[in-house]
Amino acid sequence: MSSLPSVRLADLSAHAGQQVTVHAWVTHLRSSGKIAFAALRDGSGVAQAVFVKNEVGDELWARVALLTTETSVRLTGEARVNPRAPGVLDIGVRALEIIGPSPTDYPIQPKEHGVDFLLNHRHFWLRAPRQTAIMRIRSEVEQAIHDFFYARDFVRCDTPILTAAIGERAGLFSTEYFDEGTAYLAQTGQLYGEALAASLGRIYTFGPTFRAEKSKTRRHLTEFWMIEPEMAWYDQDDNMDLQEELVRFLVTRVLERRPADLAVLERDTSKLDCVLQPFVRLDYGDAVKLAQSRGSDVQWGEDLGAPDEALIVAEYERPVFVMNYPKEAKAFYMKENPADPRTVLCSDLLAPEGRGEIIGGSQREDDYEKILHRLKEEKLPLEAYDWYLDLRRYGSFVHSGFGLGLERTVAWIAGVEHIREVIPFPRMMDRLRP
Amino acid sequence: MSSLPSVRLADLSAHAGQQVTVHAWVTHLRSSGKIAFAALRDGSGVAQAVFVKNEVGDELWARVALLTTETSVRLTGEARVNPRAPGVLDIGVRALEIIGPSPTDYPIQPKEHGVDFLLNHRHFWLRAPRQTAIMRIRSEVEQAIHDFFYARDFVRCDTPILTAAIGERAGLFSTEYFDEGTAYLAQTGQLYGEALAASLGRIYTFGPTFRAEKSKTRRHLTEFWMIEPEMAWYDQDDNMDLQEELVRFLVTRVLERRPADLAVLERDTSKLDCVLQPFVRLDYGDAVKLAQSRGSDVQWGEDLGAPDEALIVAEYERPVFVMNYPKEAKAFYMKENPADPRTVLCSDLLAPEGRGEIIGGSQREDDYEKILHRLKEEKLPLEAYDWYLDLRRYGSFVHSGFGLGLERTVAWIAGVEHIREVIPFPRMMDRLRP
Repeated sequence: MSSLPSVRLADLSAHAGQQVTVHAWVTHLRSSGKIAFAALRDGSGVAQAVFVKNEVGDELWARVALLTTETSVRLTGEARVNPRAPGVLDIGVRALEIIGPSPTDYPIQPKEHGVDFLLNHRHFWLRAPRQTAIMRIRSEVEQAIHDFFYARDFVRCDTPILTAAIGERAGLFSTEYFDEGTAYLAQTGQLYGEALAASLGRIYTFGPTFRAEKSKTRRHLTEFWMIEPEMAWYDQDDNMDLQEELVRFLVTRVLERRPADLAVLERDTSKLDCVLQPFVRLDYGDAVKLAQSRGSDVQWGEDLGAPDEALIVAEYERPVFVMNYPKEAKAFYMKENPADPRTVLCSDLLAPEGRGEIIGGSQREDDYEKILHRLKEEKLPLEAYDWYLDLRRYGSFVHSGFGLGLERTVAWIAGVEHIREVIPFPRMMDRLRP
Repeated sequence: MSSLPSVRLADLSAHAGQQVTVHAWVTHLRSSGKIAFAALRDGSGVAQAVFVKNEVGDELWARVALLTTETSVRLTGEARVNPRAPGVLDIGVRALEIIGPSPTDYPIQPKEHGVDFLLNHRHFWLRAPRQTAIMRIRSEVEQAIHDFFYARDFVRCDTPILTAAIGERAGLFSTEYFDEGTAYLAQTGQLYGEALAASLGRIYTFGPTFRAEKSKTRRHLTEFWMIEPEMAWYDQDDNMDLQEELVRFLVTRVLERRPADLAVLERDTSKLDCVLQPFVRLDYGDAVKLAQSRGSDVQWGEDLGAPDEALIVAEYERPVFVMNYPKEAKAFYMKENPADPRTVLCSDLLAPEGRGEIIGGSQREDDYEKILHRLKEEKLPLEAYDWYLDLRRYGSFVHSGFGLGLERTVAWIAGVEHIREVIPFPRMMDRLRP
């Protein structure tokens, strides 16, 4: 291979007018008997191979008929701009080698398939243009997150997946762990993130988290990726400012750098411009009243459901922070609101277009007695939280943080309805394969 | 907090001669009765608070005595360059607020502690200068990896942790998965990476992997992070070239951007300059002979042990690829070596200074019949690999990839003996807490 350097299709336009060798998969073949066209993809881009019977000779022409969908090939020929399809270069083929044949029963055909069928063949479905566009946008968002925090001198920290202490209670996967008893798969890295904020000041985690919940909605996976920054000496206002800056950065970055992928997805990008405006900051009480006035029967004290969130964001058509939820609706580690001790200093960030929550954040309770009381109220096992309580025993500090759900964020930016499409191999309660 | 902006200690020198407010933890206090000095840290840097009894008044002076180790404080005063300790600024304190007191029994004291004690108090141990330096280097390596692949148009892909199919056999953690039976925690993302390379061309994974192995060595964790690139149309030579380029990039980047942290670790950085030379490429057979000539009793056909690897790298004092191991010593997915079918097209990259393997890579077997035969030889459950075999049924393609162990790489670059120190909360067979 090294002796025969090949050109990626993404780079083909730089070679217009030259002889090139490419490696690619055939996605479609049509032939008139005298001339044949094979649509090509190689993961980086697309091109069209043109075979002229008179020019290529009988032996090569005979092989053109073997170019079934997903056949992999090595082609040599002249790269040419096709005035009728600008952006998709032609290759006037002179040499063809079939690397990997593909039987004619390739499972994904140009027709409607049910989503279960597609998910059963996820390893093939991922080759479709829509899916590669989504994967490229996801990758761009991930790099943008790293760049955002790196530029701000945050230290990226990898918190453990296997853990004895747990942040929330519902739905845990567990495994036997040698002589140490049961280990749980982390639902969050936050508690560890708090310890690391006391060490390094500003940190973020970036990793998979797990929920063994029997939820079958377009917003739930059992395995999904979270970004969890934790900042020493940030209060909840600083925390929301950072979230707003981050979300604006991510959307702007995708708009700038992945326009072709957004076009494949037919994303109405004008709907994303709303992030340039200041985000709405709405008290929980006002959010409840708003939802009620639009027909919801949610009551003060309850968490907001997805339909309530949709009603609220519909009112503004831009991201909305809902702030200061009732204590009972939120996790034990959130700081009591001095202005209204029934509530905590927290916020959910709701994305527009009916998307709902993409971030949950809060200032953390830094009072030892108060957080001990809350742990007891929630009947959590105190011995598992001993080291976490230590952070309030020795040099307790004002700190805040949040968790951004990667799949929900990517699904919103890319305009994809169901988050199962924005992760390569989704895990849901009825799906562990492929 | 927002109403009182504070300066990070890392940024203090830009404020020399100005009044500043800082938030920090006290790491050490010494007092003469008339003047007191408190060493400060805030995660970003260090400074020294200076309290002069005559200037601060009795009330504030009385509070200085309360500044035990790890007390967190808010201080206001003038930032001053101290000619006797350049780089560590003084703050001539005018106002002191104790935010979080710290009892005098803070577990980590300025004396030798055993490693078990330190690991039991990992949440505190991480506050030590050596540990924060290691964490910053780890974070730098991680960002450098992302930057390296982003600049080369690789798509970062997150492969599943919970999986029914498995890449290697030894030591698996498992969990019940709803009605789908048993799920295993991934030991590698490679098989999924291969499917994604057929979709996107060049990809890499970056995530945690798991080994339920009863290994108690300085090179083993049960949970560790791996980077696994997979490239369509790369052969094993291309693969090694990319690995060499990556390792050189990572080392150079840390040398350039984290000199202060390397200095804290007293790293002899001249030992890292060896990466600028071409890496050694040694055939497995020659590596065995070399090890034998240095006293090892390893025989052709066996995998190289850590002592063998140490003998080999000692010979060269720079990174060494050992290439083309015997089939039996390596995984089923490696491509048979056409030049010697007893062996496979693979390489381990051994780091110098006795470090041993930090990367394992190979060209992948792309012949359907051959890989099917190998799966059967290894008695692996064919039904779990059905989708993986599909990659050889439909448009099989030349491809290669590798796995870089993040902790081993960071430990080598940072000069840290045991990899348990280069991950925030290490998991080993006898350690699941904190």
